[in-house]
Amino acid sequence: MTYTFLDYDQLLAFCESVFRAYGFADEESREIAAVILAADLNGIESHGVQRMVRYAYEVNSGMVDVHAKPEVVHETPISAVIEAHNAMGQVIGQRAMRLAIEKARACGCGMVEVRNSNHFGIAGYYTEMAMREDLMGVCMTNTEEIMVPTYGRQAMIGTNPIALSMPADPIPFLFDCATTVVPRGKLEVYSKRGEPAPVGWGVDERGLDSVDAAKVLSNIISKAGGGILPLGGSSEKTGGHKGYGLGVIVELFTGILSGGTTAERIYRTGSGSGICQSFIAVDYGLFGDKAKIRADFSGYLEKIRSSARADGCERIYTHGEKEVESRRIRREKGIPVNEKTIQELREIAADIGEKAAPFPREAGR
Amino acid sequence: MTYTFLDYDQLLAFCESVFRAYGFADEESREIAAVILAADLNGIESHGVQRMVRYAYEVNSGMVDVHAKPEVVHETPISAVIEAHNAMGQVIGQRAMRLAIEKARACGCGMVEVRNSNHFGIAGYYTEMAMREDLMGVCMTNTEEIMVPTYGRQAMIGTNPIALSMPADPIPFLFDCATTVVPRGKLEVYSKRGEPAPVGWGVDERGLDSVDAAKVLSNIISKAGGGILPLGGSSEKTGGHKGYGLGVIVELFTGILSGGTTAERIYRTGSGSGICQSFIAVDYGLFGDKAKIRADFSGYLEKIRSSARADGCERIYTHGEKEVESRRIRREKGIPVNEKTIQELREIAADIGEKAAPFPREAGR
Repeated sequence: MTYTFLDYDQLLAFCESVFRAYGFADEESREIAAVILAADLNGIESHGVQRMVRYAYEVNSGMVDVHAKPEVVHETPISAVIEAHNAMGQVIGQRAMRLAIEKARACGCGMVEVRNSNHFGIAGYYTEMAMREDLMGVCMTNTEEIMVPTYGRQAMIGTNPIALSMPADPIPFLFDCATTVVPRGKLEVYSKRGEPAPVGWGVDERGLDSVDAAKVLSNIISKAGGGILPLGGSSEKTGGHKGYGLGVIVELFTGILSGGTTAERIYRTGSGSGICQSFIAVDYGLFGDKAKIRADFSGYLEKIRSSARADGCERIYTHGEKEVESRRIRREKGIPVNEKTIQELREIAADIGEKAAPFPREAGR
Repeated sequence: MTYTFLDYDQLLAFCESVFRAYGFADEESREIAAVILAADLNGIESHGVQRMVRYAYEVNSGMVDVHAKPEVVHETPISAVIEAHNAMGQVIGQRAMRLAIEKARACGCGMVEVRNSNHFGIAGYYTEMAMREDLMGVCMTNTEEIMVPTYGRQAMIGTNPIALSMPADPIPFLFDCATTVVPRGKLEVYSKRGEPAPVGWGVDERGLDSVDAAKVLSNIISKAGGGILPLGGSSEKTGGHKGYGLGVIVELFTGILSGGTTAERIYRTGSGSGICQSFIAVDYGLFGDKAKIRADFSGYLEKIRSSARADGCERIYTHGEKEVESRRIRREKGIPVNEKTIQELREIAADIGEKAAPFPREAGR
């Protein structure tokens, strides 16, 4: 696969223009494009501009309602539930986290649940919104079912990432991980290469460990059974029941507490995807002097980074380091976009015609 | 190892009498014994009466201060920080969770951090206190360092369990898992048997995968390097960085937010263990009708339990099922106690003399 490095600002402006052309307000278009490009900046290609074609489909098919008017249907000083009415995930996601932040500023803690949302990009984008306000941010989303419970052969749980951001110096702590052992995109890479996937990633239609990535994927698509394993793999011996439990906890915080939809019913609600999300902001000043807490955490992370390395390993990372480095490099050198995605972006540009911003040029040219 | 089934009520009364003899008040003694026996009822031998000898040592050595007067050093309507002054973990743990419950009843949410506590038994005991009040309960503890960060060879993080309890019918959801792939006790079993441990449990002093359970354990004890791996194993390929991140999150919620001690300094504070804990209670009525939320969650868990099973697997469990079944059986048939532990309990009884309750008889006799 050939990659071209596209100029970050131009790619952002291009994506914004696409969402404006679809009928989103200027600010909404900026919000959506910012989340998508944040994934590319972080080096998470799967959630970046390669998903533009999927978002285009969701808008054009009506699964995403461009003119949705989300409603707060339940509220207390520290909590809210939002019925998103199939709004674009990135738009309602930022609104929900802003509400959580507002509540955390007023009361120390804000917990906002959203139902009938849509795919919202990387969960870590929203937790960083809280972090920029010197708060701890937590975010979860459910997805279509793909995780098989321990000892099962039927996917019942989403990939269900948990993200948590906490201020620290010089590098913030940015945790954002699926509760499956890997996201679907990793299996796709092995499938494309025709290589066997590692044991512990997927199970076949009988619920048995399978390294046949192509087969596991086609089973997922045709709903023939099997799927991706929880973090910890197929057995209690390697802790698979722990990842499975974490996945259920994410369903609880998203599909259940919002009064919405759990993984096994997503895309089967009759209208919209039904995806649900959870946004939490906590003022860590609830527990004392913020400067001391921040300094203590920074010092602990630094101790881990500078602890003794395993033979043959060059570096111990704390969560967020790789992302911060990737952002710096990609803002300067451009976003690597593969040829298939470039073709898709050109088709989207042709589709929206003169409303499209100029197609992004290569970085540095 | 030979096991004898001891009568549950008599074993509880015996343990209570031991703590009374050590100088704890009657109610405190009941509280401590209840947590210890809850582990045995759940089938978690490692945290049950086999730890009586460790608690005896901690009390007799002064690491646990029987007469400690814990203080609330910071408080808001939804949060508190308690300086435990080396109190017994089970006593301050229950006090802290009662305070979190009180705050959740008043404000919807209560978050209580405890520093300079001690080992407090199973985290799930405290989350069930919240659950019995129809609240969601969350609890975390750090421990002495034993988890090696991804690509490291020096333990920097504790086993760091996360527990979450949520009401559901007919079986509550009870999640209580270390963020290491296994707790230390599992390695000890392989070491005693002289069998190789599974790959992905531990690393040696060079930070490389090791199946030599005895060596990994002796390295941990002598602090020669190596330790137990995070949930997900030694590599990012199997998600080891996720378990490592979850372990750090537990340190944040315990050692950092409480203004206390992180894993790598535990038992090195100069007085007491320095162990820290976090107790959270959330009224899920913050998100709407509790009966509906509870019914929705119960229905989802039932769907998982009744989903298609993997070939050769008899049953899909949801978290809490095994514990609920174990409690019923053990209350009736007795608590299996191994011969070494029985010997230790007899020595404790001899040590405290006439203050000891009668030694527990075999169940059903």
